[in-house]
Amino acid sequence: MRPSGRASDALREVRLEPNVSKHAEGSCMAKFGDTHVLCTASIEDKVPGFMRGSGQGWVTAEYGMLPRATHTRGAREAARGKQGGRTLEIQRLIGRSLRAVTDPTGFGERSVQIDCDVIQADGGTRTAAITGSYVALYLAFDFMRQAKVIETIPLTDQVAAVSCGLYNGTPVLDLDYDEDSTAAADANFVLTGRGQIVEIQATAEDQPFDRATFDSLLTLAEGGVAKLCTRQLQAVGIG
Amino acid sequence: MRPSGRASDALREVRLEPNVSKHAEGSCMAKFGDTHVLCTASIEDKVPGFMRGSGQGWVTAEYGMLPRATHTRGAREAARGKQGGRTLEIQRLIGRSLRAVTDPTGFGERSVQIDCDVIQADGGTRTAAITGSYVALYLAFDFMRQAKVIETIPLTDQVAAVSCGLYNGTPVLDLDYDEDSTAAADANFVLTGRGQIVEIQATAEDQPFDRATFDSLLTLAEGGVAKLCTRQLQAVGIG
Amino acid sequence: MRPSGRASDALREVRLEPNVSKHAEGSCMAKFGDTHVLCTASIEDKVPGFMRGSGQGWVTAEYGMLPRATHTRGAREAARGKQGGRTLEIQRLIGRSLRAVTDPTGFGERSVQIDCDVIQADGGTRTAAITGSYVALYLAFDFMRQAKVIETIPLTDQVAAVSCGLYNGTPVLDLDYDEDSTAAADANFVLTGRGQIVEIQATAEDQPFDRATFDSLLTLAEGGVAKLCTRQLQAVGIG
Amino acid sequence: MRPSGRASDALREVRLEPNVSKHAEGSCMAKFGDTHVLCTASIEDKVPGFMRGSGQGWVTAEYGMLPRATHTRGAREAARGKQGGRTLEIQRLIGRSLRAVTDPTGFGERSVQIDCDVIQADGGTRTAAITGSYVALYLAFDFMRQAKVIETIPLTDQVAAVSCGLYNGTPVLDLDYDEDSTAAADANFVLTGRGQIVEIQATAEDQPFDRATFDSLLTLAEGGVAKLCTRQLQAVGIG
Amino acid sequence: MRPSGRASDALREVRLEPNVSKHAEGSCMAKFGDTHVLCTASIEDKVPGFMRGSGQGWVTAEYGMLPRATHTRGAREAARGKQGGRTLEIQRLIGRSLRAVTDPTGFGERSVQIDCDVIQADGGTRTAAITGSYVALYLAFDFMRQAKVIETIPLTDQVAAVSCGLYNGTPVLDLDYDEDSTAAADANFVLTGRGQIVEIQATAEDQPFDRATFDSLLTLAEGGVAKLCTRQLQAVGIG
Amino acid sequence: MRPSGRASDALREVRLEPNVSKHAEGSCMAKFGDTHVLCTASIEDKVPGFMRGSGQGWVTAEYGMLPRATHTRGAREAARGKQGGRTLEIQRLIGRSLRAVTDPTGFGERSVQIDCDVIQADGGTRTAAITGSYVALYLAFDFMRQAKVIETIPLTDQVAAVSCGLYNGTPVLDLDYDEDSTAAADANFVLTGRGQIVEIQATAEDQPFDRATFDSLLTLAEGGVAKLCTRQLQAVGIG
Repeated sequence: MRPSGRASDALREVRLEPNVSKHAEGSCMAKFGDTHVLCTASIEDKVPGFMRGSGQGWVTAEYGMLPRATHTRGAREAARGKQGGRTLEIQRLIGRSLRAVTDPTGFGERSVQIDCDVIQADGGTRTAAITGSYVALYLAFDFMRQAKVIETIPLTDQVAAVSCGLYNGTPVLDLDYDEDSTAAADANFVLTGRGQIVEIQATAEDQPFDRATFDSLLTLAEGGVAKLCTRQLQAVGIG
Repeated sequence: MRPSGRASDALREVRLEPNVSKHAEGSCMAKFGDTHVLCTASIEDKVPGFMRGSGQGWVTAEYGMLPRATHTRGAREAARGKQGGRTLEIQRLIGRSLRAVTDPTGFGERSVQIDCDVIQADGGTRTAAITGSYVALYLAFDFMRQAKVIETIPLTDQVAAVSCGLYNGTPVLDLDYDEDSTAAADANFVLTGRGQIVEIQATAEDQPFDRATFDSLLTLAEGGVAKLCTRQLQAVGIG
Repeated sequence: MRPSGRASDALREVRLEPNVSKHAEGSCMAKFGDTHVLCTASIEDKVPGFMRGSGQGWVTAEYGMLPRATHTRGAREAARGKQGGRTLEIQRLIGRSLRAVTDPTGFGERSVQIDCDVIQADGGTRTAAITGSYVALYLAFDFMRQAKVIETIPLTDQVAAVSCGLYNGTPVLDLDYDEDSTAAADANFVLTGRGQIVEIQATAEDQPFDRATFDSLLTLAEGGVAKLCTRQLQAVGIG
Repeated sequence: MRPSGRASDALREVRLEPNVSKHAEGSCMAKFGDTHVLCTASIEDKVPGFMRGSGQGWVTAEYGMLPRATHTRGAREAARGKQGGRTLEIQRLIGRSLRAVTDPTGFGERSVQIDCDVIQADGGTRTAAITGSYVALYLAFDFMRQAKVIETIPLTDQVAAVSCGLYNGTPVLDLDYDEDSTAAADANFVLTGRGQIVEIQATAEDQPFDRATFDSLLTLAEGGVAKLCTRQLQAVGIG
Repeated sequence: MRPSGRASDALREVRLEPNVSKHAEGSCMAKFGDTHVLCTASIEDKVPGFMRGSGQGWVTAEYGMLPRATHTRGAREAARGKQGGRTLEIQRLIGRSLRAVTDPTGFGERSVQIDCDVIQADGGTRTAAITGSYVALYLAFDFMRQAKVIETIPLTDQVAAVSCGLYNGTPVLDLDYDEDSTAAADANFVLTGRGQIVEIQATAEDQPFDRATFDSLLTLAEGGVAKLCTRQLQAVGIG
Repeated sequence: MRPSGRASDALREVRLEPNVSKHAEGSCMAKFGDTHVLCTASIEDKVPGFMRGSGQGWVTAEYGMLPRATHTRGAREAARGKQGGRTLEIQRLIGRSLRAVTDPTGFGERSVQIDCDVIQADGGTRTAAITGSYVALYLAFDFMRQAKVIETIPLTDQVAAVSCGLYNGTPVLDLDYDEDSTAAADANFVLTGRGQIVEIQATAEDQPFDRATFDSLLTLAEGGVAKLCTRQLQAVGIG
């Protein structure tokens, strides 16, 4: 029995609230239960130096967590003077995930800067961030389409993410904090709308696990991501 | 006529939403129109080195702004590796303002760490932060009282803040971004529930102004802060 | 009775020594009693990126304090790897104060970089810095005039600053360290030669104060700044 | 046909040279073809603050790359003033991998600090680092055993790592730089001597891949790690 | 003929003004011509961690240069966020030089922190700094003696420094900026009152020089330091 | 008797292994006994801003030490976020030494970036770094010559370095760590193939020493550098 009372293959209540920001070209508040991540997409008419002259666009991401998003207050990264390793790891992951479904030739030499800021954390912030960022990115591209800057939305597929883990020996979907903090294995899966693999990050928290366990986790993730993709379509208004 | 259509002595719609955070001991989402600041108060059972052994408590604050809280995206301070001068200035102001109404002898050698994070900005973020932080601080002390850690809430008065400025030559209350960006003078007033002065920061944006103008701004602020204090009482449930 | 024995409306002995630097285009050693601030103005033939092509000039300031300018040694900011919040706050104030009386269209796309370095501190370093910087800035512009780079000095007024505070319940002018460290209120006033307001920063150190007190402080400041402006004229040779 | 001419399931020439450092308690130069990583293990008689008093030990790792380890010179991280995201990600991975096979109760409140420095890079530096670090860690524990500080080596299993990828559509083992830079998928597998999973990091470089492909990569990795574990035993002298 | 008109073995006008700081336990303004360095010595009742419990004292130094001490303004190190290599090199040299003549067993577990700040630069700032620091250090020890903290001044000898160089092929003493910027060799000599060597730093600016030249420079330095030592005795009141 | 058993004028076993790097245009592993420094020379087709348009080339150097190159592990500079004073001092010295024998007009507007990384330390790392860097630099120029980019190698002389010190009162050549840590004087000499002086850095570790002692150290260094220059010629293949 999970602390949350959920079935092993049940997501938390997921809400993807589009257009929550007054200023950003695209935005989404992604809520996976009590995990709330504000995702914004900002369009800029320039690309990083290494892409200048390529005629191609760039999508990148930054991630942050408010100091008291968590059970006990964490130090503010801006005050400490640097982003931690976990932060850098997550924001690199978000950027790679979105680029895997973006056609860089489809929106000119422009950048879309994704910002994922965790307003409240209860486990699975990186998966909520990826899932919500896709919505924000879609909406920013839609903004460009409505402004006649582009004709079609340069996304080749959807992308969403979910975590799975071993809780009391049982593979379960979408770990919340109570589950995550005692899970024996923790895996994050980034999959496409067609079910293909974009990223897998699996870690034995405590002791190594076997291949059959891993396969169960991946199967759970495939089911979870399919549901998340449905929510994404609803959020962008084509579901 | 103000861009917002408000009367010169009218506040924007103000909402002080208490207890918005699942984790923080005290919290308040302070909304001054489209300016939204999440204020949390975190209790820690220790004080900074310079206060150890004093038997007294400490209240301090940090301030941040999400990168796309603003019209155009600003660089993330954590990524740049330092907090800017404006940020430091504001968080020092918030801390001083709260300490001016806190009895440091009334909650033991403990710290209350205030975090003010601007989720969306439309002018007046520092005044919304101070006004909302008072609510978060009150609620954190109330949390301690209910936990029987303290008997009475160690606050000697309320504190709230509002900005005033010269818009097209007319003194007006509670500038929003459109007004602020063209105002000739900009003043932030931090006053107590009894109407006394905690801090005044007045700046001639463009050209110096005279003492009579300053007096008008202060009078406007006195009226505005009185209304904000009423909202604070409602938010903490004693209004 | 003030520790210094001064009347409540008396400045300390003020000396504004012009042209103290062998290298700077303009310079002034500003002495307010035992507070000594070296102010230099350096002309550079370029402006920051955000002003390029505007045809306008820029005045900015930096502030520092020698480690043993104070009663006990303070850490060297260069060694700590960053400027503190107080330093940033003061140097931003100095820059704004000087820009308020400078005509940016009057000296081409050039910068004047002001440096205020506290050689010895005894209270009121920021007000001495502003008062001395005006002299350094004037002399740098005069240097440009003599070099036929400009025809008239692009200053629209004088600017000077003084602190006032409540000492033992009495409003007093120009606090020295002994007074400042026990004052109940501390206010810095930046005023022009014509007596207009450029900046006011008033802080209740201990407990809030009322509007009548504030008015007394401002009146004291008006008198003090008038005297400082006379000294500035003498220092630049037109008094 | 791979650029290297290797069979799809063939490792590069692997050499694990033990005891290469005059000073370190344990050390290993790990060579995977032209990728050379110096791994040292340093014993310290203290643990980080969060473990003090636990009676347990700690294993952690740092990773670096010499500026000209690569085809074109990279900036020195010490000169840039911070470690990059990739560096932090890799050193966190190395630490987790070693801790997964270490019994923290078996060597007292001591730390083993692993340093992995890439002397020359040709792809797969993180997998060589993990594989060599296990040898350095074993030798450091052996040093403690010979010094009668511990009785048995507190390692519960071996751990080694290898990369796999899709090269021209074919799954291949142990990518070198030429293969890695054009591979469509890139996965790093950290497995134990018993073949269990410690970490999986799989990334679609270009376009998402399917589950069957992932399964092929994992199968290749299982074979590769088994061979690496044999080399580790030889290197520590028990093979 | 030197630009300064001085004889090849002539120092600039040297003034060592003692007790120039209101706050520091020892201080000296060292003027070598237009090079002015403010040297302060601050006593602290603690030593760095690596000396705690040793019963011995510690002398260390920091060095800085005001931004407009030089012909053209240099960036403020505190604003850049780090001390440059030249600064670190010089402050390490000052510390070593003073420690070479200090008896660490003669003033308890205390630190003397030397600060050398260049108010105006015209070549030879490090040699002026060392020469003036000796005076500040002596006066700080004298302060301790008068306060009955120590009985005798724990200095085993005097220490002073001077630069020499090849100007137009001729060895000359005490280079000023005009000479230094064109000198073919530049050597700084730190010698004791008895004429012994504490430090030599000799550099071929342009092209290597021979041993005979070096010998000439050292002979010039011996004469120069002897004169500086006489000035030091006068400054501390025993000359 | 020296701990190493060497005669007072004997170098350690010196090996200068050329072309040890797969990627660098020039490289040399410099071994002075157990001190091993990897020196690489990287050619870049640009120069720093201050040299652009000069038509001249630039040689510069960076220095680093692996954390466990030493007896006890030192903190990694990249992790601490800055290079220490000793590191900056040494890399500046290496750069100056190489520039003293390089003709900047002989290889166009190009840079040669030298990296000296200490793989293992046993005293004298800076002298090994300089001696090996010359070889790496020569080989990089030779690479350019073979690529027909330049016709002749733009080096005007050889440069090498050695340390000397007072061990038990006796001047000795090429101190190893055991000798260095107890030596009373420590001097590093950078000399050319013709025996001229490029740099001298002599420091009294404990107590000042006299001129006769210094002369002995210099004489020892002249002999040592002559031998090192012979090894350099062998390493580059013209000995």
